[in-house]
Amino acid sequence: MQDREPMVTLTDDEIRHLLKTHRPRLGRLAFVDAGWPVVFPMNYVADGNLLYFRTAPGSKLLAALRMQQVTFQVDHVDEVWEEGWSVLAFGRLRMLTDDDEIAKVGQWPLRPWAPGDRPHYLRLDVASFTGRRLV
Amino acid sequence: MQDREPMVTLTDDEIRHLLKTHRPRLGRLAFVDAGWPVVFPMNYVADGNLLYFRTAPGSKLLAALRMQQVTFQVDHVDEVWEEGWSVLAFGRLRMLTDDDEIAKVGQWPLRPWAPGDRPHYLRLDVASFTGRRLV
Repeated sequence: MQDREPMVTLTDDEIRHLLKTHRPRLGRLAFVDAGWPVVFPMNYVADGNLLYFRTAPGSKLLAALRMQQVTFQVDHVDEVWEEGWSVLAFGRLRMLTDDDEIAKVGQWPLRPWAPGDRPHYLRLDVASFTGRRLV
Repeated sequence: MQDREPMVTLTDDEIRHLLKTHRPRLGRLAFVDAGWPVVFPMNYVADGNLLYFRTAPGSKLLAALRMQQVTFQVDHVDEVWEEGWSVLAFGRLRMLTDDDEIAKVGQWPLRPWAPGDRPHYLRLDVASFTGRRLV
């Protein structure tokens, strides 16, 4: 009997390390709109419990700023499906307004999926992580 | 002024074609759990407005069977971020119980992320699609 999934739970430290080192710096931002989960690919930079994004003015993603419950998901799934991991970061999304923080983040490798002028920088303040690795 | 994102909306036919031909057959299944979006990488096979998955007994994904609003997301984001697309399929998830359908789907290239005996086959009956391509 091998009904249980051969998964191991990742610690918060392991998850922060995976988020920091994973390449490409691509994950999926999810929030709930009228009861439906909506999911967008997003370039990110991880700094401990803070995840940074950049988006264009007018982006549908800005709706997520009104949400109390936003999730960011990053995974690595091996082509032959023999190994992989997936992590979830749960928190609240904020728009950066502090000039010093914007100047700092502006030098990081953050690109919006859809480029545009006058980018907005967003920060997910992570309240909790979950993650699993396939053994 | 180039504030708007340089995106074009995809038609349902374009989305069905992308889902059918995209490789690897990998996307993210999302549902809402206690107000939080939860997102899991999933291998899939697309057949028109039906998306098929396979999972192991005991999988957390089976919670999605109780949800009325389930979303599956697939994207292609170019390494240099110069092009890409992302599509969302919204619908309801069901477990396959019909022996003929299980036999048919059992021959398709569906692998659970976490393998196990006695797989469950799931089907997302898509009620609507949305999708955008970065021009």
